[in-house]
Amino acid sequence: MSSFFTKRYAALEPYTPGEQPQDMQYVKLNTNESPFPPSPGVAAAVAAECARLQLYSDPESRKLTEKLAEVYGVKPEQVLMTNGSDEILNFAFMAFADEERPLVFPDISYGFYPVFAQLNHIPYEEIPLKEDFSIDPADYCGGGKTVVLANPNAPTGMSLSLQQIEQIVAGNPDGVVIVDEAYVDFGGESAVCLVDRYENLLVTGTFSKSRSMAGARLGFGIGNAALIRDLNTIKYSTNPYNVNRMTSAAGIAALEENEYYLANCRVIMANREYTAEALRALGFEVLPSCANFIFARRPGVDGGELYRSLKARGILVRHFDKPRIRDFLRISIGTREQMERFVEGVKQCLEA
Amino acid sequence: MSSFFTKRYAALEPYTPGEQPQDMQYVKLNTNESPFPPSPGVAAAVAAECARLQLYSDPESRKLTEKLAEVYGVKPEQVLMTNGSDEILNFAFMAFADEERPLVFPDISYGFYPVFAQLNHIPYEEIPLKEDFSIDPADYCGGGKTVVLANPNAPTGMSLSLQQIEQIVAGNPDGVVIVDEAYVDFGGESAVCLVDRYENLLVTGTFSKSRSMAGARLGFGIGNAALIRDLNTIKYSTNPYNVNRMTSAAGIAALEENEYYLANCRVIMANREYTAEALRALGFEVLPSCANFIFARRPGVDGGELYRSLKARGILVRHFDKPRIRDFLRISIGTREQMERFVEGVKQCLEA
Repeated sequence: MSSFFTKRYAALEPYTPGEQPQDMQYVKLNTNESPFPPSPGVAAAVAAECARLQLYSDPESRKLTEKLAEVYGVKPEQVLMTNGSDEILNFAFMAFADEERPLVFPDISYGFYPVFAQLNHIPYEEIPLKEDFSIDPADYCGGGKTVVLANPNAPTGMSLSLQQIEQIVAGNPDGVVIVDEAYVDFGGESAVCLVDRYENLLVTGTFSKSRSMAGARLGFGIGNAALIRDLNTIKYSTNPYNVNRMTSAAGIAALEENEYYLANCRVIMANREYTAEALRALGFEVLPSCANFIFARRPGVDGGELYRSLKARGILVRHFDKPRIRDFLRISIGTREQMERFVEGVKQCLEA
Repeated sequence: MSSFFTKRYAALEPYTPGEQPQDMQYVKLNTNESPFPPSPGVAAAVAAECARLQLYSDPESRKLTEKLAEVYGVKPEQVLMTNGSDEILNFAFMAFADEERPLVFPDISYGFYPVFAQLNHIPYEEIPLKEDFSIDPADYCGGGKTVVLANPNAPTGMSLSLQQIEQIVAGNPDGVVIVDEAYVDFGGESAVCLVDRYENLLVTGTFSKSRSMAGARLGFGIGNAALIRDLNTIKYSTNPYNVNRMTSAAGIAALEENEYYLANCRVIMANREYTAEALRALGFEVLPSCANFIFARRPGVDGGELYRSLKARGILVRHFDKPRIRDFLRISIGTREQMERFVEGVKQCLEA
């Protein structure tokens, strides 16, 4: 820390992203990326933009916003596009939480929530997941707080039903409920269908997982128009041209080829079931996942040790050195071949 | 504003970007974009990334950082890449200014400075430019404040010498001096050569102007390694994957073809002199510009009216409805043909 760094952020503990080895030599199952490249139309759409890069992007991302609204069955004024979904989450924390409406989220969830809260000096409460790592909707009702839930949750992969989400949204009329649906396309139920009925619901999403675009950085928020206007107040005070031309074009092309991605999701879900079965056969406990990853532990096996053994064998998964989940590994679901290599690697580790 | 919007930002007045008509039918001289497309290697570099978009970008943007460091003659640990230079400016305001080190910047400068200050609840003082719209370095020395200066300044285009910048940096050992060099490549003197000698100097830059990439969103900061570490603390608490793969690849390609951009800058500077001469011949006062725009007024002519007359003729320039500069127009410098059409349009407006 330099002598110039503000005291405001002196205690801040930044988020630690999963390892991103740039040489691609690992079976990389650690950051929940898709194993499939973007759909064929993406490259062509991006190429066309390269000839116009000297011009600023549209700060409203109008065409992309309209296309996404069409695909999700909402109005364009109910949508905000961002530079990845981390940005929409940060904007939402800034806009809808403060001392009077503190944050509440599960103790085991996306590790960025407490970082955003600390960054913005917003008080927050972490509610423990139940013993079986599920979320009890009753824990999030009432209290006039701003609720943040990943659904499916990460790193557990476990999901709340639409009915349970509605219970929480209806039970918090005085606070915004942010439902982070980064992983919803792998078997979860989306709450987007509720945004017309609940003025306090904001659903966030990303193109990083099911749409194979983690490297393009594209996220979005869907909520009623008044919430979106508030989020735009933050955006236009932060980075009005937040989404670049290439990513915007890639996003439109991807939405036009939605079937490609839905088919990939089905493959990933099948590979998830294959992997979960194989791990259970090896004595693992695997939490029921609706995401493109599974969360698993084997009684008697140290999670950190297994993570390191796999890494030494060229297989990268994610391990969180945190209470309650120290013995779990989070395994992103890749191609069938990658998952076979993973299962083989696990066998070798257990036998070693 | 929704009933959920935090009181913290209730008084915030977001930045208003220049108009971005997406139909491209105007002679567009309003947002200081380059009239030239990116260099030939950019499209190829971007195309190669499209096949890997499913993988997250490198949060360190290592290759791009190393290349930029090489071109600017600094070490990689003295560089941070961001999603446009608005992002590095916001990070720097967050990291280096607070109640104890309030901000100080000119009353006429980039309109985002007061917005970032308000967003972050940082007290700020606007120091009036002198009568001739120049900056007096003495106004910025001492006081233990965080100084922000655009050099060349916008929208005046006027420049401080390297010696004057050094006087300000040396005169503020207790505060960071942020020198925003968005427009430096059009005739200004860069302060990057001072970063090894002054631990309180942060230079920011952008690929939006001289490097023809406003639509790709790429900015950067150069300073001593301790300042960059502080900025990374903010970045990793905000948006670790802030620079996407395509933009990163485009940036590397552009830096490898630096000569192309330097040649374009020379053309733009020649077109600037042509335009300034033509306006002076029409009775305009034109401030001396080291940027890719000029700031001009004609005694007896209302700036807002001239802006609207030009717009009606298909020529878009920028007008700021602010005290002291209400009668000025800011005219981005385009191709020779665009500037001839602009001059012709001005003649028609004056004769109408």
